[in-house]
Amino acid sequence: MTTTHSSTTRARRGRPGYDRQTLVDLCVKVFNRHGYEATSMGMLADELGISKSAIYHHVKTKEEILESALNEALDGLEAAMEEAEQTDGSAQTQIEAVIAGAVQVLVEKQPSVTLLLRLRGNSEVEAEALARRRSLTTRLASLIGAAQAQGSVRDTTSPKILARLVFGTINSLVDWYAADKSAGAEQTAAVLIDLIFNGIKNP
Amino acid sequence: MTTTHSSTTRARRGRPGYDRQTLVDLCVKVFNRHGYEATSMGMLADELGISKSAIYHHVKTKEEILESALNEALDGLEAAMEEAEQTDGSAQTQIEAVIAGAVQVLVEKQPSVTLLLRLRGNSEVEAEALARRRSLTTRLASLIGAAQAQGSVRDTTSPKILARLVFGTINSLVDWYAADKSAGAEQTAAVLIDLIFNGIKNP
Repeated sequence: MTTTHSSTTRARRGRPGYDRQTLVDLCVKVFNRHGYEATSMGMLADELGISKSAIYHHVKTKEEILESALNEALDGLEAAMEEAEQTDGSAQTQIEAVIAGAVQVLVEKQPSVTLLLRLRGNSEVEAEALARRRSLTTRLASLIGAAQAQGSVRDTTSPKILARLVFGTINSLVDWYAADKSAGAEQTAAVLIDLIFNGIKNP
Repeated sequence: MTTTHSSTTRARRGRPGYDRQTLVDLCVKVFNRHGYEATSMGMLADELGISKSAIYHHVKTKEEILESALNEALDGLEAAMEEAEQTDGSAQTQIEAVIAGAVQVLVEKQPSVTLLLRLRGNSEVEAEALARRRSLTTRLASLIGAAQAQGSVRDTTSPKILARLVFGTINSLVDWYAADKSAGAEQTAAVLIDLIFNGIKNP
């Protein structure tokens, strides 16, 4: 990277005026379209219609953008999990809170969660994100184990498999949820909670 | 690509002896690890420990490998759908057959289905594969609509949303199913059918 800007024009390098968060959001969409590894800083600059310097004004490397996006997704999911775990009530109530919280995060941060779900662990940043993702599954499995002990969830399948399937059902939202066409997060969460607990059969 | 092999050594260029199917299978794993767009023919040759000529012996382009893998996944899923649609019995029985058939294909062709599920439609080949995938969802939605009319599936949610969630639950298998550790396809399908119809709650 070379830059000829003097320090007085520094603040304007980010034209057309993207702040860091907007820059990261836009880059994540490009990552999702082409795959993270296939996306170069040059491609990001081209697709965003700004100079590479404008990107380097906010971040040092492509991986720093990845890390910001993954942290955004994981911080949101972990906060939702924490809140659910601290919800008063039965394990079933807590599981319902996990589903509702995760749906909320997916709807609000669909691009960064999509990026998270497509990672393969090819670098330390990716491996750490995958470890945090696995830890969320383990925490949901604990709640499911507690619900099995309380008799509200069937014990015919292991908590771990159930946790993976529950997250699998929720995560499929990133592939088809359309903020402009689908029901809102709250209503979507209610549908998912009902289906995950009661299934699709006519009761 | 340049080659100095005479026509008499042509048959040996595929060393260490990969046939076309094995070559495609190995390339798909590299695509899944790095993303299709990020994978070059040179990377494929390096990761497979063979020459680029050995790859070009079987395929003309990287896209031809993608197309073979996607056809394998989609042909399998479409055959499973067709068989399910022709199953005698209620719409519920046919939906159960779709789930069992899809699980079977996912377990048998996990890498190529994984590749299919991560596509973004960035080329004609990809767009066509996505259209075939959407058509499978539409066909499952039809069966679900029929089951709703027959009273076996709840009509509180649209057939299309239910079809997406059912495939979402099944598709999550590609992320965690391990042929050497998980239950076999038949048992896994039975668990999924039970959970999708009856949910996780203790009956």
